Amino acid sequence: MPPGRPRRTSFPTISEVAAEAGVGRASAARALGDYGSVSPEMRRKVEEAARRLGYRPNALAWSMSTGVTRTVGVVVGDVSNPFFGAVTRGISDQMHTEEIDCLVASTDEDVVTEAEIIEALVRKQVDGIIVASTAGVDHPVLHLEAARTLGVPVVLVDRVLRRFEAPAVVLDNVAAARAATQLLLDAGHRRIGLVWGPAVGDHPTGPPGDTLSTIGERFEGYRDALAAAGLEVDERLVAPRPATLADAPRATASMLTLDDPPTALVTTESDATLTTLRRLRDHGLRCPEDVSVVAFDDAPWTDLTDPPLSVVRQPAVDMGRHAARILLALMAKTGADTGPDAAEPTGTVVLPADILVRASVAAPRA
Amino acid sequence: MPPGRPRRTSFPTISEVAAEAGVGRASAARALGDYGSVSPEMRRKVEEAARRLGYRPNALAWSMSTGVTRTVGVVVGDVSNPFFGAVTRGISDQMHTEEIDCLVASTDEDVVTEAEIIEALVRKQVDGIIVASTAGVDHPVLHLEAARTLGVPVVLVDRVLRRFEAPAVVLDNVAAARAATQLLLDAGHRRIGLVWGPAVGDHPTGPPGDTLSTIGERFEGYRDALAAAGLEVDERLVAPRPATLADAPRATASMLTLDDPPTALVTTESDATLTTLRRLRDHGLRCPEDVSVVAFDDAPWTDLTDPPLSVVRQPAVDMGRHAARILLALMAKTGADTGPDAAEPTGTVVLPADILVRASVAAPRA
Repeated sequence: MPPGRPRRTSFPTISEVAAEAGVGRASAARALGDYGSVSPEMRRKVEEAARRLGYRPNALAWSMSTGVTRTVGVVVGDVSNPFFGAVTRGISDQMHTEEIDCLVASTDEDVVTEAEIIEALVRKQVDGIIVASTAGVDHPVLHLEAARTLGVPVVLVDRVLRRFEAPAVVLDNVAAARAATQLLLDAGHRRIGLVWGPAVGDHPTGPPGDTLSTIGERFEGYRDALAAAGLEVDERLVAPRPATLADAPRATASMLTLDDPPTALVTTESDATLTTLRRLRDHGLRCPEDVSVVAFDDAPWTDLTDPPLSVVRQPAVDMGRHAARILLALMAKTGADTGPDAAEPTGTVVLPADILVRASVAAPRA
Repeated sequence: MPPGRPRRTSFPTISEVAAEAGVGRASAARALGDYGSVSPEMRRKVEEAARRLGYRPNALAWSMSTGVTRTVGVVVGDVSNPFFGAVTRGISDQMHTEEIDCLVASTDEDVVTEAEIIEALVRKQVDGIIVASTAGVDHPVLHLEAARTLGVPVVLVDRVLRRFEAPAVVLDNVAAARAATQLLLDAGHRRIGLVWGPAVGDHPTGPPGDTLSTIGERFEGYRDALAAAGLEVDERLVAPRPATLADAPRATASMLTLDDPPTALVTTESDATLTTLRRLRDHGLRCPEDVSVVAFDDAPWTDLTDPPLSVVRQPAVDMGRHAARILLALMAKTGADTGPDAAEPTGTVVLPADILVRASVAAPRA
């Protein structure tokens, strides 16, 4: 005998519901399982009996017979990052309206961990997966291909993958980074640095296929804004890829000790922002008097830092909601859900960011 | 026919593994399912064949036969709150070492939502549940009783419940709040206010049974420190319970407009801290010159606010790890897991906090 937990004797059975309703067991099963033909009167009698007895279907048995687990996987870089926290919130709020639960996992921006998580989700037969993949934009993603081949629909969020055609919900990163850089150019800055967080793929000025789409696109927007102002990218002002979060301070620090250091910085996510503010402080540099800052992501604390930060505000909760609606539509097509109608768009949805101006941008020192 | 997803033809079957290994199907099943008696040589042959074919057991079928889903439920107030984010992180890191996944859900500090979540988790036959319950410390928690009756072990984290005896991992809240208050008393303050977040249960000076254990205990530590200094609690300095997060600003504001307003505040969690800093700013009050602040929870941004905050640092990741280890021990007893040995402590674990002094406390204005 395999080990098992104590038998759950207090679940009323379908037979007991059938007896209570005064109908046959097969009819009760059809009504409770919501399949096959059942008259409205029969359904009403069975449902009332089920309610009286506190009947609850065994979810595992139901899943075995239907192939539907009413569970989806949500895979992000780090759920405690405020951006991913908000995306996850949007997804689970939307899924909750369909009584679907979310298995949430963090990859720590490691692609091997991501592949392990995806495999575990597929083995649990989730009905679908939403993933902010940590793979480079041109990398093969066999783990996602495998999931889809095995019948699990996949929706991308935050980041697209060129070698895996799937519906995606992303920010207009090029426009957002261009606007952030423009804000600094308009204030008179010409030496503008770009600071990454722990998730980059490879360096944006290196082989492009190794870079996350968000990073590549934000670099593109930064470069475009500089070019429109007649400026070229100075690679010393683009922080090298930190191998780990712990390495990030060193990367930013090297930029600040140049002979001609940046007078302004764009940070591409919340961890990079916190690190940057700490490094400025360590170097005795004041914001915005010595260095101006525009930060990606309107984390809840960005109006309370010294100074309050001008930020690129991503519609993170909406990104999650959109991704969830698209996944529900895909699940409806594969029979895993009968929720919203199948006319829901399933292509790439690009959402705009806006910029919230606070007090972290000033003119460069004369 | 019930609706189903396309059949997964690419899972190799046990029969195929048996043929590949040159053994009988029953032997292969015993070796792969890790039950019954199998010779080491047989096990080796079957495992090698399984590896060659890329065999992966159908997790649902395996769960049906063993009653084990290798999934646990994690139920917290709000996973995007940095404290709960860290607790959840500790739990999932520990569970990951046993290849167990976490279903994470937020109650929004609503007890009806919590009951719905617990019911859904039980129906999915999770192997165990870790919950920071939003029920008052003396409230009945029938949803948790029901889960345990149905064979699902429950571990409490952050908050205890007097009417539900279960292992728990909590902070020494009385000592932590006493130390926070003492820090302000030592700086010369006599008018010290206490500010809650959205999760309180009922007001701490009202019927005690309606209050979360954390809130009641932190109030006790605050009161004890005042009493030792010969001071009584002024109820006008204990923020009334905000019905929702949106109401919190008003509660704090009413304290600041008293004829004899507080010269110092203790905030009991991160949302309350952010709200308090905003209200001080709205009232043109500077920290620490006009009002000193000690904040519960060393959120990642607390060293970058204006001013950097003196905080009560909870070992949140450790709390999660401890709770996970206790749950694993309980699961081993019910046969849901064969992981760590059953000698693991299963009583209440009380962890100490420490205080990190930064720049938000000064002497009161003369």
